[in-house]
Amino acid sequence: MKAMANDILITNSTLLPLAPGLPELIRDGYVSIRAGKIVALGVMADLTGTGTADTIIDGSGHLVIPGLINTHTHAPMTLFRGMADDLPLMAWLHEHIFPAEAKSVNPEMVYWCTKLAAAEMILSGTTTVADGYFLEDKVAEAFAECGIRSVAAQGIIDFPAPGVPDPGRNVAAAEEFIERWQGKNSLLTPAVFCHSPYTCSPETLQRAKELARRKNVKFFIHLAETRAEVEQVRKQHGTSPVRYLKNLGLLDRDTICVHCVWLEQEEIEILARTGAKVATCPQSNMKLGSGIAPLKEMLDAGISAGLGTDGCASNNRLDMFFEMDMCAKIHKVKDLDATVLPAAKVLQMATIDGARVLGLEDDIGSLEPGKKADVALIDCRQPHLQPFYDPGILVYAANGGDVATAIIDGKLVMLDRKILTFDVEEVMLKVRKLVKKLLGP
Amino acid sequence: MKAMANDILITNSTLLPLAPGLPELIRDGYVSIRAGKIVALGVMADLTGTGTADTIIDGSGHLVIPGLINTHTHAPMTLFRGMADDLPLMAWLHEHIFPAEAKSVNPEMVYWCTKLAAAEMILSGTTTVADGYFLEDKVAEAFAECGIRSVAAQGIIDFPAPGVPDPGRNVAAAEEFIERWQGKNSLLTPAVFCHSPYTCSPETLQRAKELARRKNVKFFIHLAETRAEVEQVRKQHGTSPVRYLKNLGLLDRDTICVHCVWLEQEEIEILARTGAKVATCPQSNMKLGSGIAPLKEMLDAGISAGLGTDGCASNNRLDMFFEMDMCAKIHKVKDLDATVLPAAKVLQMATIDGARVLGLEDDIGSLEPGKKADVALIDCRQPHLQPFYDPGILVYAANGGDVATAIIDGKLVMLDRKILTFDVEEVMLKVRKLVKKLLGP
Repeated sequence: MKAMANDILITNSTLLPLAPGLPELIRDGYVSIRAGKIVALGVMADLTGTGTADTIIDGSGHLVIPGLINTHTHAPMTLFRGMADDLPLMAWLHEHIFPAEAKSVNPEMVYWCTKLAAAEMILSGTTTVADGYFLEDKVAEAFAECGIRSVAAQGIIDFPAPGVPDPGRNVAAAEEFIERWQGKNSLLTPAVFCHSPYTCSPETLQRAKELARRKNVKFFIHLAETRAEVEQVRKQHGTSPVRYLKNLGLLDRDTICVHCVWLEQEEIEILARTGAKVATCPQSNMKLGSGIAPLKEMLDAGISAGLGTDGCASNNRLDMFFEMDMCAKIHKVKDLDATVLPAAKVLQMATIDGARVLGLEDDIGSLEPGKKADVALIDCRQPHLQPFYDPGILVYAANGGDVATAIIDGKLVMLDRKILTFDVEEVMLKVRKLVKKLLGP
Repeated sequence: MKAMANDILITNSTLLPLAPGLPELIRDGYVSIRAGKIVALGVMADLTGTGTADTIIDGSGHLVIPGLINTHTHAPMTLFRGMADDLPLMAWLHEHIFPAEAKSVNPEMVYWCTKLAAAEMILSGTTTVADGYFLEDKVAEAFAECGIRSVAAQGIIDFPAPGVPDPGRNVAAAEEFIERWQGKNSLLTPAVFCHSPYTCSPETLQRAKELARRKNVKFFIHLAETRAEVEQVRKQHGTSPVRYLKNLGLLDRDTICVHCVWLEQEEIEILARTGAKVATCPQSNMKLGSGIAPLKEMLDAGISAGLGTDGCASNNRLDMFFEMDMCAKIHKVKDLDATVLPAAKVLQMATIDGARVLGLEDDIGSLEPGKKADVALIDCRQPHLQPFYDPGILVYAANGGDVATAIIDGKLVMLDRKILTFDVEEVMLKVRKLVKKLLGP
């Protein structure tokens, strides 16, 4: 049989497949990529006859991992990174973030600030991101141009919003967004993002979920982020946030509840029974002083949970390495038990579990023949990544800056920390101009 | 008056002096360095006649900060980075760390693993480090050769230790160490490190503190790190750790208590009254599941507290940017209050407050004319450091990999991420050989 040339061949590297049935580590390994997919991986000694490719990447000293999956962010909010730190939640939101959004959010801002987010994410090894914002067409357009895989969810809220001045059209606008993007771009999956139970009426929530069901797309919602929210939902609807959503018929396998900080054990069981998924955002919850999610309890109950950075107004990073590290540590100290959330589990959360949350587990989240080629290479030839005992080094010692190369959908998106798909200098320049405009004369 | 040439001149950069009486930020600024000291800083427009130097560093797009100060580590333990993660504290210590130390700690290991630590610290902007270990001569030698400033403290413990097989000689060995190094090297200050109240007898503690007083050096001790330690001290000595040290006469302005996780309010007041200092290690305390220190309460009581990474067996990073970020976030979520430990305070803890903890506040910790030139330059021309609103970006968005250049004692130690004072490749090679030896056949 004649050997076919690969599009990309990664050689001489240590592979971390994170796939059931494959070894935890493959030393001196290769990955071959063809037509957007991983076609083979294994040890170099077995690489005979197929050792050619258009692009050969020497992975010596590198660790090859599935690209990281960020299950929750608001990409355009890079504009507000560090604009209002260390403030009480309500002052932060009402005196800083909302006014800044009112002043600055428009298609141009969404487009360029999403590209800034894409640059940061690719540079730190994220290859798939789930986003929720307004003017989501511009988010989708920017992500697609950057070559990053995304689940882009159009925001729904019962207030006038950017691009949707009439709240009466919020669900209709989301439907139009889905119709414009569904099945149009192999990198992009459209979805619905209802802001929260306290900013959407029960009718809006139900109509939005009905839309999501009809279109077979994911439904994201901020849920039980703060104690104040729980109190407000109780006051307005007479029950807790999870029970409220359940009563409205919103919880099923395609609903992704973001945050889930303040849950009772019975609510955890409700989430588990309905098959609802969770996106946990430890850094955002810590920085805003919101609380620590009962993640161990959710995982014990069998809930699928992914990691999310949240937006740059509340983190202020989109670096999944910081998120993994924080997730592992905060739950250990919460329980005063160093065995909680071990590195191996956190790595799964940032890869295959995140894929499962987004319904993409058959396509991405591990290095397996037949899966889409979303891959990151970590350069371990640095003092802070020596010695190498096991993959926990990714969680407890690495940072986003250690990612050298990224491949998404079989396409080389970053090589040796140079992004190849768009002009990052131009993006930073455009964002600086937007900042000047925001700060005003 | 004839203008003298500078040794180093940093131009066109944004300065963050972190000094009382100076602006928070100086945009388009310069720093001139001569004979190991900062001789002037200000705006470029005022730089007339002194604009020459042997080395001119164009700081365009960079933030210039005082070098970071790590107030607690065990440098040689880089050998154990990631060797035993996610384990219960006692299993971690007795089944992994102690046996690995017994097998590997010797002068060669201490020397090379300290150099690995120095490389990581310089690469992440740390210019001063307080270390405590055994065979501390080799630590001191390695730090001095690397050109990093240090407070090197010889370990004292009532067990046979590397270099001190007879515990009866532990205090004498520390005295000899101090005599070998005191006043010998402008970069190095010797000190004493008593391991803990549960590994040293009251007599050892008192003799060690008496030695520290006589030699006028700092006295470090691990204190109240875990609940188990508090219980053990109570059982053995009938009182809590801080009261126990106070009763022994160990607490004064030159004593640095490391960790201080489990303190009663009255113990905080005792520490404050005695003038004792604290080194807090949030990441280590979280990763080992030890707890969260009452840092806000200690600061409110007027205690000087610096940040420490702890050793690589329990962190696993020596990157002060991670430590700053974690410190800011963990105390916010502990109190469910986003205003706790604001970025500005955390930056002080990592610089001038750390200097105060080590008794070096007249020499380092801020950018001021007359102070020693310990300086780091952060490259902000990267997507994750855009936009720039205020210095909080260092705490909430930067990481150690963003440090481009480091100057210590007026000497260029790293330029554009290349360490100039020693061969990092050689160090990594030597450490890899030590790992092979440790893991054995």
